[in-house]
Amino acid sequence: MHKRIKTRSMQKISNKIADKPHFYSDFPYRVRYADVDQMGYMYYGNYARLYEIGRVEAIRNLGLRYRDFEDAGVMMPVYENTSRYLKPIRYDELIQIRVHIRDIPKVRIVFSYEIFNEEGELVHTGETTLVFVEMATNKIIPTPKSIIERILPFFSS
Amino acid sequence: MHKRIKTRSMQKISNKIADKPHFYSDFPYRVRYADVDQMGYMYYGNYARLYEIGRVEAIRNLGLRYRDFEDAGVMMPVYENTSRYLKPIRYDELIQIRVHIRDIPKVRIVFSYEIFNEEGELVHTGETTLVFVEMATNKIIPTPKSIIERILPFFSS
Amino acid sequence: MHKRIKTRSMQKISNKIADKPHFYSDFPYRVRYADVDQMGYMYYGNYARLYEIGRVEAIRNLGLRYRDFEDAGVMMPVYENTSRYLKPIRYDELIQIRVHIRDIPKVRIVFSYEIFNEEGELVHTGETTLVFVEMATNKIIPTPKSIIERILPFFSS
Amino acid sequence: MHKRIKTRSMQKISNKIADKPHFYSDFPYRVRYADVDQMGYMYYGNYARLYEIGRVEAIRNLGLRYRDFEDAGVMMPVYENTSRYLKPIRYDELIQIRVHIRDIPKVRIVFSYEIFNEEGELVHTGETTLVFVEMATNKIIPTPKSIIERILPFFSS
Repeated sequence: MHKRIKTRSMQKISNKIADKPHFYSDFPYRVRYADVDQMGYMYYGNYARLYEIGRVEAIRNLGLRYRDFEDAGVMMPVYENTSRYLKPIRYDELIQIRVHIRDIPKVRIVFSYEIFNEEGELVHTGETTLVFVEMATNKIIPTPKSIIERILPFFSS
Repeated sequence: MHKRIKTRSMQKISNKIADKPHFYSDFPYRVRYADVDQMGYMYYGNYARLYEIGRVEAIRNLGLRYRDFEDAGVMMPVYENTSRYLKPIRYDELIQIRVHIRDIPKVRIVFSYEIFNEEGELVHTGETTLVFVEMATNKIIPTPKSIIERILPFFSS
Repeated sequence: MHKRIKTRSMQKISNKIADKPHFYSDFPYRVRYADVDQMGYMYYGNYARLYEIGRVEAIRNLGLRYRDFEDAGVMMPVYENTSRYLKPIRYDELIQIRVHIRDIPKVRIVFSYEIFNEEGELVHTGETTLVFVEMATNKIIPTPKSIIERILPFFSS
Repeated sequence: MHKRIKTRSMQKISNKIADKPHFYSDFPYRVRYADVDQMGYMYYGNYARLYEIGRVEAIRNLGLRYRDFEDAGVMMPVYENTSRYLKPIRYDELIQIRVHIRDIPKVRIVFSYEIFNEEGELVHTGETTLVFVEMATNKIIPTPKSIIERILPFFSS
């Protein structure tokens, strides 16, 4: 359906990946009836939920848990989100959510996503920028050291 | 919380609006318990639903109904979506969704959004690009004439 | 589709209504793309959202706001919920959510719902039982006096 | 919080289970940020999604796929749903969804649920009644033989 667009987009991503070593993480997701609209496609607003799952499981793969951040008084509101819908995802498909952290986070942390369908095709890309906020003061703080320390080893070649 | 960012973003939007006459439409929305997460903020993934409401009501204000497009064999899958979260939206707030169509649509139609809180502050901006697909052939088609005709008068000064 | 069932259900409700004066409240709702599944029906899990909207607007019609309860340290977790799906609700329909409080609440408050489609047919019934919990102690408390006082006048004939 | 209620409810379920052999199936679920409201609890409307996951995975455990039913022109609209919220479920908990089919289905199929939190406590029970509808005629049909055949062995002691 969006052949030309898709090819361009994939190339861009492949180049980026080739650029440098970084952290990434995969997580499977089964598409549910609740996710799909009357076109038979995953509703466009439900991808953000997939991103959230990918992010949280990526952080878990680093040996950390987002819930511990909140318990320690730090929350991560989203600042920016972008999504590109290359091909529809359908009911009951077992998709793969790939999450990349391409740059060592400073004040902002950027997660980028690639979603693959059951045939292994790239069907969706996205990117979310979050900040860290200290609940007590409601102020933006730098990325906690615990994250930096866990991520750093993935960025050395 | 994001003061610097917000100011820059508002300026950009104001300039765009000043550029030229175009079509826009307002719709109120009451934030529901279902929308809000444990930070007490509208969940970042639920804004896409607000955009959908804004788009459909904007089309209704043009004297058209999206459901008639589907009944006539045309659907509008989303190709791209971007969101900027300037300030949190909270439970039970009565917000305003402003939807702009800034350019006469061709193969793609772009809706851009400004969301205002109860105090009238701009708290969120976003943009969605959709295409028109003929269900029978699953091919992308140009924007239906019925839309172009209804929109055109708003673009003359 | 469920003719026999529907008739029985309506009768039961009509009898109940006829029994005694009580408080009820109507609120319109436009069905969104986000609400509908690939059968073209409102997803069965999304009715709870309609109930929430109905409840909150019923409370607002009483001159109260649920958010004020939470600000005063009282929350209303749901204890029980039942739903009966008589006829499907479809995309873009403008439905009516009717909420009844049929009994003066004590420790529990019961909201019951009737949902009507654009043709005025009863398409859904439901019931939710909630309790009041004092956040500070996490203990169940009786229905706040502010609610009782506002409701009482509707129960005298 | 609901100690008395919970005990009664658990007893009832245990009795039922003890009554006779039947089919049941377990599936894990990680609670997401999207699921939780500002009380810090799974939003009451999101349990229906858990039920759906449980049902579909129970059917998969029987060697069948719901998507194949729809492809064969049969859909399963929900007729009735009931939920009992015994204890809150919180963000990031890894809960277990247990789905029972306690009776050999005829015109209706009834799935009942028990949800257990990370500590193994029963925190929620529910029940959904669905019917089978032939899409071509929009008529209710008996439970397909493929389901009956797969279920039957679990009901002999």
